Amino acid sequence: MGDSECVFCAIVHRGAAASIIHEDDTALAFMDHRPVTPGHLLVIPKAHAVGLEDLDERAGAQVWLVAHRLGRALRRSGLRCEGVNLFLADGEAAFQEVFHVHLHVFPRFTGDSFRLDADWRLRDRGELDRSAEALRLGMSRLDC
Amino acid sequence: MGDSECVFCAIVHRGAAASIIHEDDTALAFMDHRPVTPGHLLVIPKAHAVGLEDLDERAGAQVWLVAHRLGRALRRSGLRCEGVNLFLADGEAAFQEVFHVHLHVFPRFTGDSFRLDADWRLRDRGELDRSAEALRLGMSRLDC
Repeated sequence: MGDSECVFCAIVHRGAAASIIHEDDTALAFMDHRPVTPGHLLVIPKAHAVGLEDLDERAGAQVWLVAHRLGRALRRSGLRCEGVNLFLADGEAAFQEVFHVHLHVFPRFTGDSFRLDADWRLRDRGELDRSAEALRLGMSRLDC
Repeated sequence: MGDSECVFCAIVHRGAAASIIHEDDTALAFMDHRPVTPGHLLVIPKAHAVGLEDLDERAGAQVWLVAHRLGRALRRSGLRCEGVNLFLADGEAAFQEVFHVHLHVFPRFTGDSFRLDADWRLRDRGELDRSAEALRLGMSRLDC
């Protein structure tokens, strides 16, 4: 079940230090040691999975449920929290750095250091419809 | 169930145009009209909810499941996709712009325009442990 070279598997098996918030049969939540803001946490499946492709759907649903509750808990924690972001990076091109799937949950407040940038140009309906068609094709190729 | 001034509720009820990918009893997925990259889509609960606080947990789980599958579908769509990001903004301080909860799913590739920035300093164990304790307190204050 574990990957002997994976730091998150080591945390699951208590072979590496972490500040753990929550544990159940399927998921583990602990503090990110390089937080975007104080309170930044990660939720992972305890069974090793690299990313969305090999993540069991039921395990993923539990990771999400824990993240949903912890996002709400941030607003009740006493930590500074005016908003919450959830973020998941699947693959190196998407900024994944630890190859055990993890969902980031972090509090936000006015004046914090987190920034996003992209080219957000409005696209025309034809282009969007072609993208939707490509996605439906991709869905038809899933094995679920 | 709908909010008469909400553009995403209008999409659900076919009162506003959208390039729809998937619909089931609980969730709807359609293309973001200002995509970070071609293929950028949104998954929403059909019942109006502003954010994590008023989102029904079962509806949230279905939104996640659809996003999980569409993230995998992106890699089978023919659209350029070397990685995938999932992103949710809960609250204005977290960059939420439409106040009907939505989960972004977008493909990534080398050289795309998406950038993240933050102050990611390593924090000491004492600080992380205090954050974890605050989160556990926040969890104890949830009504679920």
